[in-house]
Amino acid sequence: MRRRGQVSSLGEVQLIQRISRRLRGNPSVLVGVGDDAAVLRETSKTHWLFASDMLVEKVHFRRDDLAPQWIGWKALACNISDIAAMGGVPRYAVIALGLTPATPVRVIDGLYAGLERCARRFGVAVVGGDTVRAPCLIIDVAILGTVQAVHLVLRSGAHVGDSIFVTGRLGGSLASGRHATFTPRLREAQWLVRHLPVQAMIDLSDGLAADLWQLARASQVTLQVCAEAIPRSRFATTLHQALMDGEDFELLFTVPSRAVRRVPKTIGRVPITEIGRVIRRGASVELKENDGQREVLIPAGFRHL
Amino acid sequence: MRRRGQVSSLGEVQLIQRISRRLRGNPSVLVGVGDDAAVLRETSKTHWLFASDMLVEKVHFRRDDLAPQWIGWKALACNISDIAAMGGVPRYAVIALGLTPATPVRVIDGLYAGLERCARRFGVAVVGGDTVRAPCLIIDVAILGTVQAVHLVLRSGAHVGDSIFVTGRLGGSLASGRHATFTPRLREAQWLVRHLPVQAMIDLSDGLAADLWQLARASQVTLQVCAEAIPRSRFATTLHQALMDGEDFELLFTVPSRAVRRVPKTIGRVPITEIGRVIRRGASVELKENDGQREVLIPAGFRHL
Repeated sequence: MRRRGQVSSLGEVQLIQRISRRLRGNPSVLVGVGDDAAVLRETSKTHWLFASDMLVEKVHFRRDDLAPQWIGWKALACNISDIAAMGGVPRYAVIALGLTPATPVRVIDGLYAGLERCARRFGVAVVGGDTVRAPCLIIDVAILGTVQAVHLVLRSGAHVGDSIFVTGRLGGSLASGRHATFTPRLREAQWLVRHLPVQAMIDLSDGLAADLWQLARASQVTLQVCAEAIPRSRFATTLHQALMDGEDFELLFTVPSRAVRRVPKTIGRVPITEIGRVIRRGASVELKENDGQREVLIPAGFRHL
Repeated sequence: MRRRGQVSSLGEVQLIQRISRRLRGNPSVLVGVGDDAAVLRETSKTHWLFASDMLVEKVHFRRDDLAPQWIGWKALACNISDIAAMGGVPRYAVIALGLTPATPVRVIDGLYAGLERCARRFGVAVVGGDTVRAPCLIIDVAILGTVQAVHLVLRSGAHVGDSIFVTGRLGGSLASGRHATFTPRLREAQWLVRHLPVQAMIDLSDGLAADLWQLARASQVTLQVCAEAIPRSRFATTLHQALMDGEDFELLFTVPSRAVRRVPKTIGRVPITEIGRVIRRGASVELKENDGQREVLIPAGFRHL
């Protein structure tokens, strides 16, 4: 039941818009609330990226389904995914941990083992944090990354004529456990921003449909996606799953038409698939069905609220 | 009941030690887990400070007792206090918010109004964050500050012969509401590091007794504190309250004997009080009673776990 005046009556987008309006500008903040990470000007050649993500037990994971190692891995990996999607490299993280007093110590050890493994693999130094009592397990990771100014990619850079690509295969992430065990696409994102004029990029956390809308709104363009082109994971039996399931943590990006032939079929073993084009100005997302019919894609992806 | 193998069987100090051991070093991390904030080398003259603090409903505040504005204020102010205690200046913050779906929208508006007021007052740009569903209201603020290398103060710098000072008056913070409405001692900390050779500093979050122990352990020295010298707030009727109540968010610092006469009685309207001395090496804290008796002060301050 969604009551007026409660958070549940607002969508996540409306909630973030409401919050963004309150927060003021600052000349050294190049991009504030609304992209995967904030961009802070350091020098003319390098910027800092600053982001945080909170994972809550029974919302983002269940202790029964997920080993503590993977909870720790996921908490850091989804932040690395945010930094990767901006064209940046993760550097430092602080961890705030909420624990019930009855939490087994082996859970904390496992959680940190997972965090540490992820940190080591992606070159992140975990430099501090906070530990507090809470009614359930909560992990909030704040991450600092750096990005070379020439590699910075925002959600808002898509242009009419661009082709739209995704990495990997989509859907079924929650069912398969991949929502926690995924590899953030840092290497792939770095390859892309170093070799191609990537115009806009976002990581897929809320489901392809919802994140297409994020990109469309930020860039004020209409994206047309071909249903049959969307690469499905083997855990997604339907198109609906590939469109709506959340937490794929793949990359969605656009490249201008002149550069399309330089986009490889794979980076390492990760497939890169063209799924559509930016067809006109004005924020919208269209799905082109196999029979040629077009419909506006409803952004009913995974909702965190 | 504290069971072996559960978090409740470890103290906060033991828990943090356990976590610190797991996390690896990095050459650009000057100070990692264990101080108020991590210190990251930027240039030879300036460092970044990076910290986070999580506030959980019913642990750190109750919605019945505290207006949403003050919840927002507290969430940012306690992070500013951490940066101030290192000699730094807060710059940027990201906010991760956990909300129940039934949270009234006016609560969120109030919360951000408080955050915004605190941010404006202390020159912090709130640049982003995350909003997720949670079983209760949770606010995690991660903060980035800068500190001039010459102004950096750690917990570990106290030396035998130093005098020990506190700002403000201690105790009764929870009863009086000051735990949320406090003014972080940024101005005072900046004055101190610019005018005095401050050797060690920490902000008082867990109660004077517990934080004296933090400083003693970090510096490997014995602090002797005179009971009658401890300045009590008008909400602390007993010495025990001034020693043990948490969330004063005042500063505890040491100054070498040669500089003691340059310590002012007040900074603005905030009293500065000498409460004892660093008497020898070896981590301990002694309380000198009015009758001259000395006892080891048990660190039974406010426990977050």
